[in-house]
Amino acid sequence: MSKFIPSISRLIEEFAKLPGVGKKSAQRLAFHIINMDQSQAVSFAEAILDVKRKVRYCEKCFNITDQSICDICNDQRRDHDYICVVESPRDLIAIENTKEFHGYYHVLHGAISPMEGIGPNDIKLKELIIRLQSDETKELIIATNPSIEGEATAMYISKLLKGSEIIVSRLAHGLPVGGDLEYADEITLAKAIEGRRNL
Amino acid sequence: MSKFIPSISRLIEEFAKLPGVGKKSAQRLAFHIINMDQSQAVSFAEAILDVKRKVRYCEKCFNITDQSICDICNDQRRDHDYICVVESPRDLIAIENTKEFHGYYHVLHGAISPMEGIGPNDIKLKELIIRLQSDETKELIIATNPSIEGEATAMYISKLLKGSEIIVSRLAHGLPVGGDLEYADEITLAKAIEGRRNL
Repeated sequence: MSKFIPSISRLIEEFAKLPGVGKKSAQRLAFHIINMDQSQAVSFAEAILDVKRKVRYCEKCFNITDQSICDICNDQRRDHDYICVVESPRDLIAIENTKEFHGYYHVLHGAISPMEGIGPNDIKLKELIIRLQSDETKELIIATNPSIEGEATAMYISKLLKGSEIIVSRLAHGLPVGGDLEYADEITLAKAIEGRRNL
Repeated sequence: MSKFIPSISRLIEEFAKLPGVGKKSAQRLAFHIINMDQSQAVSFAEAILDVKRKVRYCEKCFNITDQSICDICNDQRRDHDYICVVESPRDLIAIENTKEFHGYYHVLHGAISPMEGIGPNDIKLKELIIRLQSDETKELIIATNPSIEGEATAMYISKLLKGSEIIVSRLAHGLPVGGDLEYADEITLAKAIEGRRNL
């Protein structure tokens, strides 16, 4: 590494900070930038700065947006009965891409994780509860990840809303479509049996 | 993809242009930038711009440098008898890291590849020949890649210098150190037998 000139070392270090980018990949990416046209490199750098300038959280659902209220929250044709709770904006996109859900969202920006010291106050949970008090929501679909943290968060929310008139539901567990039963892990398979549906 | 706001889509596209970065990775990287501190993102963008501002080719060996002549060419204590010819600055770094070579370098910035339309005039080959006419080089060590293109380039250079007093050599082929003979490909194994040395 010592053989690189400072500006290259610095760029390699910056790339190496990105998730999933090791030392060798960071070098390859840095040299790709070096071999780029000047205009392409400027465009890349500008895209990074631009996203930081423009992106903020929707004041209502905390999805990322470039306005004060995001396009989904602004869309009055969506179904006001449902709010789908997700951990991250990327999860929201994944659900939107299914075209199966037409309600609104709430992005928690994380999940409760005592191991990592993330408590209920560290995610946008209070904001969800406040929102539910004024909204006409009938059902809250909790689409946090099927991980320990996601399950804990789902349980926590469902306990918070116990006694309220809001139905709290959770995404179904089961076999992935197109997957091979033989290769499914035991827990998923058990959940798939437990959640079986009559045909 | 259509669900992203323009500034995010643009950043994802920029990341997706990088080598080895697919659509999903590009999304992950873009969201990593979004979640970065402002100062970190600025530092990243600056590193990209900085490298493009400062990095240029050494006028002598065409290694990348931030001066007109690179540190290696400027180092008069190195062995003037040897020039090692490499395809790219990264290959140069790899050889420097072995600490086994103390001569100078020449970076071709590519290899001859008729398939891709890259001829002798598209790489820094003319510059090498001109340089050899004035230098006191005794041996040219051709360290192009052990690929078809690298071999073709090595052959081309050796033919060009036939009849001159300069010795032209090529890096040895053989088994990688620490590798398992059983898993070596046949061509490498054949080259290793061919190049065997007395103990």
